[in-house]
Amino acid sequence: MTRIALTLLALASSTALAAQRTAPPLPAPVDAKVAALRDAALKDDVAYDIVEGLTTEVGQRLAATEAEARARTWGVAKLKALGFKNVHVETYQMPVWLRGEERAEVLAPFPQTLKLVALGNSGATPAAGLTAPVVVFRTYGDLANAPAEAVRGKIVYVGNAMVPTQDGSSYGAYGPARFVGPALAARLGAAAIVIKSIGTDHHRNPHTGVTDFPAGVVPIPSAALSVSDAELLERIADRGKPITLKLVLTPRFAGTGTSGNVIAEVPGSDPKAGIVLIGGHLDSWDLGTGAIDDASGVAITTAAAKRLLDGPRPKRTIRVVWFGAEEPGGYGGKDYARVHGGERHATAGESDFGADRIWRYEVNLPDSAKPIADRLQTALAPLGIGRGAGVGGDGTDVGPTLALGVAAIDLNQDGTRYFDTHHTPDDTLDRIDPEQLRQNVAAWTTMLAIVANAPEEIGSVTPRR
Amino acid sequence: MTRIALTLLALASSTALAAQRTAPPLPAPVDAKVAALRDAALKDDVAYDIVEGLTTEVGQRLAATEAEARARTWGVAKLKALGFKNVHVETYQMPVWLRGEERAEVLAPFPQTLKLVALGNSGATPAAGLTAPVVVFRTYGDLANAPAEAVRGKIVYVGNAMVPTQDGSSYGAYGPARFVGPALAARLGAAAIVIKSIGTDHHRNPHTGVTDFPAGVVPIPSAALSVSDAELLERIADRGKPITLKLVLTPRFAGTGTSGNVIAEVPGSDPKAGIVLIGGHLDSWDLGTGAIDDASGVAITTAAAKRLLDGPRPKRTIRVVWFGAEEPGGYGGKDYARVHGGERHATAGESDFGADRIWRYEVNLPDSAKPIADRLQTALAPLGIGRGAGVGGDGTDVGPTLALGVAAIDLNQDGTRYFDTHHTPDDTLDRIDPEQLRQNVAAWTTMLAIVANAPEEIGSVTPRR
Repeated sequence: MTRIALTLLALASSTALAAQRTAPPLPAPVDAKVAALRDAALKDDVAYDIVEGLTTEVGQRLAATEAEARARTWGVAKLKALGFKNVHVETYQMPVWLRGEERAEVLAPFPQTLKLVALGNSGATPAAGLTAPVVVFRTYGDLANAPAEAVRGKIVYVGNAMVPTQDGSSYGAYGPARFVGPALAARLGAAAIVIKSIGTDHHRNPHTGVTDFPAGVVPIPSAALSVSDAELLERIADRGKPITLKLVLTPRFAGTGTSGNVIAEVPGSDPKAGIVLIGGHLDSWDLGTGAIDDASGVAITTAAAKRLLDGPRPKRTIRVVWFGAEEPGGYGGKDYARVHGGERHATAGESDFGADRIWRYEVNLPDSAKPIADRLQTALAPLGIGRGAGVGGDGTDVGPTLALGVAAIDLNQDGTRYFDTHHTPDDTLDRIDPEQLRQNVAAWTTMLAIVANAPEEIGSVTPRR
Repeated sequence: MTRIALTLLALASSTALAAQRTAPPLPAPVDAKVAALRDAALKDDVAYDIVEGLTTEVGQRLAATEAEARARTWGVAKLKALGFKNVHVETYQMPVWLRGEERAEVLAPFPQTLKLVALGNSGATPAAGLTAPVVVFRTYGDLANAPAEAVRGKIVYVGNAMVPTQDGSSYGAYGPARFVGPALAARLGAAAIVIKSIGTDHHRNPHTGVTDFPAGVVPIPSAALSVSDAELLERIADRGKPITLKLVLTPRFAGTGTSGNVIAEVPGSDPKAGIVLIGGHLDSWDLGTGAIDDASGVAITTAAAKRLLDGPRPKRTIRVVWFGAEEPGGYGGKDYARVHGGERHATAGESDFGADRIWRYEVNLPDSAKPIADRLQTALAPLGIGRGAGVGGDGTDVGPTLALGVAAIDLNQDGTRYFDTHHTPDDTLDRIDPEQLRQNVAAWTTMLAIVANAPEEIGSVTPRR
């Protein structure tokens, strides 16, 4: 026997030992009732009916506007018609921001118009417009490193190189240009800022979204160019000649208005076991009709809850919330936690990443409830859903509730094409693939069937981060 | 031997005889110089440079506007810089139509805005808008069969079921809703007309395009909804409640203006052999930057001619025309035929169907020149281009010249994705695939190398149809 062969033998033995030590437990068996509910949900029509209805009969639902109020009325009627219990609206007050005119024109060196939209919380130009030279930053990092004298009095342009990702992580990587770029530009004395849309498409429908000006920073006019227009501006910049841009952006802050959460329940048999909180957000940006963001989220979670509603009473109460005013800053989620944070919640999770296939789940469960995650694994596997390596706890709406120590169960949608459409006029019903929507409903139904009836106690956890 | 076997034997014999009788001629050999030009063109950068330049440094080029004039100046400079001869502009006068405001709002039963654009030659609503009930026709045929009392005083909606086709034939099938629908609605007393875009995408960028009001028919406000918005309106109509629409469309006719053709030549050695006329159109609609419609057409034909310009002088003069004002009604093509129709043309062909792969060629050649088509077949085959079964002679710009009996050579692009973008704001540089653009240049170079040097006389033909 050679030395190499001996080494291989030793290696093989130690590998076998290691395998023995780390042998996985047997897969958790799938309850036949859970499997039946899951499989029946693959034929669901309730979710599509809700998305179709909201996008057709209401359309855009900008937070704290009359349209969002109409959507609440629509939601209450729909949830009552579906047979949910304790259907009601909980309102709260919030600042109102409304879009105005939005136009951009390259005056020099090559006169032409550009397509852009104001960002939520954008300041306004004079009604006649603002004309200024443009300073081009290809990345947010370039702006962050710029001296104030390079920016002062100018219209700042910030590019990005966003690419599609399954887990949406590129939104975190490139989003800061929108989230905090305008405030930084304002601090540096910029006259205005236009960013390349935080998006992965090439259509001339720019991506809006909220930006944040901290107290003491006066909002400057802030807008997003479509990706195509941003690339055009960069090509113009490549010619090396000074660029003069004229902007007309007339959004306005319209005082305080009313928004609200629509709440419905599937009552459970054991109030002490805690509430299973699920939902999505009812409001949308004003450019599209809010199909993937987020009629689909309220539709998926409602359709799944409806399947439990129509069966034997679950152990835990399932509470479905159609959160208001997520887009401008998660007002609905904060108000929910303010009002309901004192109630016992078992778990919380939201659907707010479109309606393409769910590919992964992640949890943040207390040790006493760990077997739930194993049962989810075997029950979700036939839907093509695997267990992620991370800790669950996503979501703007359930975030304030999770922050109180509530356990989290995330069902993650495939985000590969999400940022083609996110926050654009293209967020319309045709973006919904009915088959993928049904897979979502099946996943949420499976989760509810397992979690709402789990015999384990589900106590509090340390919130993620 | 069975009866069946005997029958098969007889069949086989007759098949063999038929094959013998119709045995194809040997493939025409490919001239080595033609092949070398073709293959070198697959590395072309001139065409992309032209498309990039026009879309970046000029942008939209609406006919008879200052922007189209700037594009002519740009073109003259570019063609001179490339070394073309006899570079000049030929102007003509034409009516000017300019876009105004365009907004649509469903007032009932479900209040929301819709995205639409005016069609070229549209009439205007009052500045404050026009409000009327909507009558829905799912197809142009339904409108054509409607009694006047169903239409009078109403806003007519006309849908379609356009699908992508390689040869673009669905444009002919569904286009009449735009081409003649508005005039028909006007004759029936409609207050206005909105059509579903003649397009195959689902983005909220409606497809504009010209419509025609014959003399004596007063133009009514005429617009196209995006496909997504049209589907929304149809879903609203499906609810069965009366629809009230408010339209604001304020385009205007702005008298007479100047447009023009930009002309350049590769001089040939034998003026009597006739001109090989090629080109595309320089003007564009005002919504996009006219990349596929039709910066790519002028770019492809110019880049191909440039390759002949840089080699030995061809037998025939190659004339490249960047036609003006194609979109509103082929004014450039008509003026070219008026001015140059008396000159001897050997062939004419244009590129005005985007920049995706050329998949087919079709000719209309006199008998004396038939071998040219055979040589094209073998020379174009390595580019994946086959010979079509039809007769060549496409094109708005070369149409008036072809009508004089000039032979035609068409190189047809794949139109599968053309009507996703055609006449929308999305007609921007990013729609150009540089590799497919190069294949186009190689095909046109091959055609020019064969046709401009063909020893055959190329006389006149009977125009197609």
